[in-house]
Amino acid sequence: MRALRRVKAFAPATVANVSCGFDILGFAIEALGDQVTVSFNDEARLRVLRIEGDGGKLPLEADKNTCAVAIHAMLLHLGSRQGMDIILEKGLPLGSGMGSSAASAAAALVAANVLLGEPFTKAQLVPFAMEAERVACGAAHADNVAPAILGGFVLIRDYHPLDLVPLPVPEGLYCTLLHPHLELRTEDARSVLKQQVSLKDATVQSGNIAGLVAGLYQNDLALVSRSLKDVIAEPSRALLIPGFYALRTAVMQEGALGSGISGSGPTIFVMSPSEEQARRVGAVAEALYQELGLGLDVYYSAINRQGAHVLETA
Amino acid sequence: MRALRRVKAFAPATVANVSCGFDILGFAIEALGDQVTVSFNDEARLRVLRIEGDGGKLPLEADKNTCAVAIHAMLLHLGSRQGMDIILEKGLPLGSGMGSSAASAAAALVAANVLLGEPFTKAQLVPFAMEAERVACGAAHADNVAPAILGGFVLIRDYHPLDLVPLPVPEGLYCTLLHPHLELRTEDARSVLKQQVSLKDATVQSGNIAGLVAGLYQNDLALVSRSLKDVIAEPSRALLIPGFYALRTAVMQEGALGSGISGSGPTIFVMSPSEEQARRVGAVAEALYQELGLGLDVYYSAINRQGAHVLETA
Repeated sequence: MRALRRVKAFAPATVANVSCGFDILGFAIEALGDQVTVSFNDEARLRVLRIEGDGGKLPLEADKNTCAVAIHAMLLHLGSRQGMDIILEKGLPLGSGMGSSAASAAAALVAANVLLGEPFTKAQLVPFAMEAERVACGAAHADNVAPAILGGFVLIRDYHPLDLVPLPVPEGLYCTLLHPHLELRTEDARSVLKQQVSLKDATVQSGNIAGLVAGLYQNDLALVSRSLKDVIAEPSRALLIPGFYALRTAVMQEGALGSGISGSGPTIFVMSPSEEQARRVGAVAEALYQELGLGLDVYYSAINRQGAHVLETA
Repeated sequence: MRALRRVKAFAPATVANVSCGFDILGFAIEALGDQVTVSFNDEARLRVLRIEGDGGKLPLEADKNTCAVAIHAMLLHLGSRQGMDIILEKGLPLGSGMGSSAASAAAALVAANVLLGEPFTKAQLVPFAMEAERVACGAAHADNVAPAILGGFVLIRDYHPLDLVPLPVPEGLYCTLLHPHLELRTEDARSVLKQQVSLKDATVQSGNIAGLVAGLYQNDLALVSRSLKDVIAEPSRALLIPGFYALRTAVMQEGALGSGISGSGPTIFVMSPSEEQARRVGAVAEALYQELGLGLDVYYSAINRQGAHVLETA
């Protein structure tokens, strides 16, 4: 087999903090993602040659760019000083709460791993991507990078050691992503969280995440719908997103299964039992935001089951 | 079909507060249970004719006896003034945390329901049994009565309205029940609970219950084992049970999957991947409690999958 010189990979956008799965559950979406091309160089260092589609906002420096940081963590683990060139094509908006940094890191890792002859399984790449999250967001969380790499729903049961549990994707489940035109700083979304919760709320949250997991296994969308409730993070964070509850009322009346804040926002995800339903939900949301005088981007997507994957090799 | 005059039913002991499933998860055990015989009378009222095996501790009065209270709730729902006679044979110890009151109510309801020609499904009987729990324990909780009636693992996702989710029972799962000879009042077990928990602990608990549910569906006993951790109720309640942590260390070294407090204690349940393993765990526990100079009853049991059921009809 001829050695590869260049690999281009795709990784999907992701929704983390899936309602009652606050901080422990994420899923990958089909419609949006980043593409990263990685090739060998003889410089014994990582170079980000260019970034497209970011409006010049992302850093090219190898110690700040999430693609380079992730690959660096991988090479360090291998004890390799191999040089690589990286080209990043952003396909998803920055700072939207749809796992933008995670998609870049995931695509970079899958490309670099294949370039090196696949020393790692996909699951083994997750800790390297978490290093990129540490640089991008200040916390090495896995709830975007794990589904970005593995696809589907992924439960992060624990971090010490990392325990990832891929969960099944029910038939027909479809997502509407509503991205309001507003800035929401992750720090603010974090600082509004209450650090103490009542025993009652903790118990309610446990019941709902248990119900959601059971619903995914049983392909029971009614149970998924009843379980999609977050009594811990959402009550604080929803206040940062204008029209959040009006939107919920409108989409639930339209037949949605549930809605929640994607990541730390401002994007809102809405689950529906079909693509048709998801499109009706999107139309309702657009009308509502227009009424409120706010801008809104709407995306429609199936759940991505494949995760990050190679697009081209040379 | 000849009308029935008398029905005898059995309902199993149960473990509630299953570790990370605090307040939302219970399961039924095969080894122990109560038997209740219900027959028609012409008195237009409920009478508890006798109770065997309770050492004279349980009330015979119809408004205090859990069998009668449960059947009364059922008859009230039907708008019936039918009189019934009740005989209760206790097969499980009182106040042990193994769902003693729940087993009596469950067996009584299943017997009375069959006697009446099955106007209710088994799941529909759960709210009536909850009324008996209200009288017996001061709270209409479902985490003992639901598995006592339905068998297996049952998630109580919500109470308003009641949302019961039966979960699969993995192959080979076997239970050792350790009942230390000590009095533990439910009020004390309740009063030691902290009413506020940290966001971190709430998140850890969510991850573990999600992992436990996934492990049950995937028949993955290693995942069940990793998930069987309670960071919310157990740290407070374990202090009320002498030798709790020494016992955990000993049984885990012996190959158990996990352990926890059954209900509000003092019984401790230990999960094992086989009957043989469960018996080794029991022997280790007995030796440890002998060393501590404390009495201990040990029970071995598969998970009961059938729930309450009829034994005899006449």
